[in-house]
Amino acid sequence: MTFTPHTLDRDRDIELDREVDVPPELVWKAWTTPELLKQWFAPKPYETPECEIDLRPGGIFRTVMRSPEGDDFDGAGCYLEVIPNERLVWTAALGPGYRPRAGDMPFTAILELQRTGSGGTHYRAIAMHQNPEESKQHAEMGFIEGWGAALDQLVALVKRP
Amino acid sequence: MTFTPHTLDRDRDIELDREVDVPPELVWKAWTTPELLKQWFAPKPYETPECEIDLRPGGIFRTVMRSPEGDDFDGAGCYLEVIPNERLVWTAALGPGYRPRAGDMPFTAILELQRTGSGGTHYRAIAMHQNPEESKQHAEMGFIEGWGAALDQLVALVKRP
Repeated sequence: MTFTPHTLDRDRDIELDREVDVPPELVWKAWTTPELLKQWFAPKPYETPECEIDLRPGGIFRTVMRSPEGDDFDGAGCYLEVIPNERLVWTAALGPGYRPRAGDMPFTAILELQRTGSGGTHYRAIAMHQNPEESKQHAEMGFIEGWGAALDQLVALVKRP
Repeated sequence: MTFTPHTLDRDRDIELDREVDVPPELVWKAWTTPELLKQWFAPKPYETPECEIDLRPGGIFRTVMRSPEGDDFDGAGCYLEVIPNERLVWTAALGPGYRPRAGDMPFTAILELQRTGSGGTHYRAIAMHQNPEESKQHAEMGFIEGWGAALDQLVALVKRP
């Protein structure tokens, strides 16, 4: 492991912490390949018709999520740290090239992957908020449940023969 | 030069572009050493009584600027890119550890240093804003004049025997 795991701030962070039985390399690939990400990123019945990835600090990470009613949610943030197969950090508070961007409740997300003894992945996804109110609001919107359902979709996708 | 110079967005960026007759290493030291930065960072008669620097991506960059009337302006952002003697990027839109932070008109700043033929420094300081309105407002507050006066103070400081 080449990174220091994030120390959780229980008031301002939301965390999904799970073990999955697919290796870190496949989880990483699913997170960083647009054609794969579009297949799992939005918890069904939402869809992800568009995804743009420039995998370097300051590079764009953009997704469009579409509701069953056809409403699109377009978000363009940027990556901050990229350690292949281990750690990915991005934020919605900055756009490509680190330009500040307006937006409701911007959060910074951290994805941490560690190989388990059985060859699976200890998977941590953390959303950092600026204050406890926004963290609570995000939690009540079903953030963890949504990320958990998406992770199930990711695992099913990379296991497909 | 190990970086790609920033392409200016004339609507949303403000730029100070100058040559100074001190080498990049001394400019870098003045920007990254709290005891030095406190001596030049605020254009006089403003002062910088406090400065905190953790020089790595995600590390804190905090300054307190004090007006002649004794009002303090406390700002804590974080670094995004650190290429010694060449390029420094930080933002006020994220605090230490990349946590989003509230604040009026957050900007991201880029400092680019290139050695000139005569051993001085081609000095670029750029402030990136989310929209033309905030960029204009910052410019009208005297941003460039302030950064220029501070640069004069930096040069005088590092030349001092």
